Amino acid sequence: MPERGPSRGRPRDIDVDRRILIAARDLLLVNGYAALSIDEVADRAGVAKTTLYRRWPTKDHLIVAVVALMQDDVPILDTGDIRADLTDYLRQVADGLNTMRRAGLPEGADDRSAGVVAEVAAAAARHADLGTLIRAVFARRNAMAIGLLASAVRRGALRTDLDVAVLFDQLVGPLYYRILVTGEPVDHPYLDLIIDGALRGARPSHAHPA
Amino acid sequence: MPERGPSRGRPRDIDVDRRILIAARDLLLVNGYAALSIDEVADRAGVAKTTLYRRWPTKDHLIVAVVALMQDDVPILDTGDIRADLTDYLRQVADGLNTMRRAGLPEGADDRSAGVVAEVAAAAARHADLGTLIRAVFARRNAMAIGLLASAVRRGALRTDLDVAVLFDQLVGPLYYRILVTGEPVDHPYLDLIIDGALRGARPSHAHPA
Repeated sequence: MPERGPSRGRPRDIDVDRRILIAARDLLLVNGYAALSIDEVADRAGVAKTTLYRRWPTKDHLIVAVVALMQDDVPILDTGDIRADLTDYLRQVADGLNTMRRAGLPEGADDRSAGVVAEVAAAAARHADLGTLIRAVFARRNAMAIGLLASAVRRGALRTDLDVAVLFDQLVGPLYYRILVTGEPVDHPYLDLIIDGALRGARPSHAHPA
Repeated sequence: MPERGPSRGRPRDIDVDRRILIAARDLLLVNGYAALSIDEVADRAGVAKTTLYRRWPTKDHLIVAVVALMQDDVPILDTGDIRADLTDYLRQVADGLNTMRRAGLPEGADDRSAGVVAEVAAAAARHADLGTLIRAVFARRNAMAIGLLASAVRRGALRTDLDVAVLFDQLVGPLYYRILVTGEPVDHPYLDLIIDGALRGARPSHAHPA
């Protein structure tokens, strides 16, 4: 979290933070990374530029905070139907990635570029504090999604000897790989194939002898 | 490929290109992205700066060309043992990613950052020509690795109804996901778990009824 300095603990700070981040998110989605202007974000949020820079000293800090905020907007539901829950979860992840990939691109533009998704990865690589922050956000969020898999193991829907963290990577990793590397589409039919592939060997009916 | 202008077709150009790219790769691995200096690359390769800029107009163009070169250094062998061949292939991919992740970091530094891997992804996202180039490189290389899987299907080592492109993503995607997003280690034990997970549902003995 950013240093708050003398304003630490004032209740309305959270509102200011959120107002800034929502303004930044909205402008990022419209303009993309290169054209995002911190001054414009401050203006839209109705705060002084110094207020914004005190919290997020660079554009990289701001976009990583925006991504952290967006992550928390993805609910993870455990309804007891692992295929349905994974489908719901992966669709939300894919929708978020596709939205970030297309941010700032004109309608109908070639959308194979990773766009803002790659800029966030590079921001995390360039600044040690941002790397630590974003990895903590993903660790916390991913633990919840891995919990879905662990819950399915406990009720017998998935094999008891499953490495749920590895299975999780095989569900989510392909989405990021396509967005960040190959540029291939991450659409709903693809998600179904990924879930089919991951669950096929993970069901107890296919268990190897112990 | 870069425009060659009037020098197109001169046989020694390929040597010059390769000399520049090897100098760039060596300096990139030692210094990382931020500290990479194009002047220093030209100096080390023994070429005029203008020669280098004519081929690769920005640092981003240069590092993407370096990655394309490194990709071609990875041999893909089909020995008829799919597990052994995948292990060999994934180890080479992981070694390359880990080398790029650590490029420019002092010995013993925290190496959870994606480092140059993220800079390459961002370079491809920032420049449409680089995005097109790097996606073409990956498409060509990945087709060879997917060919390994298709060959295993043909000889009955993998299910005939397998989507080999999806299986490939579930093998390689997790490596990039860990490097670029979660920062978790991509070591040999992890690769074994990924291969176990991918092959478990892909073997014909686990086939669903058609």
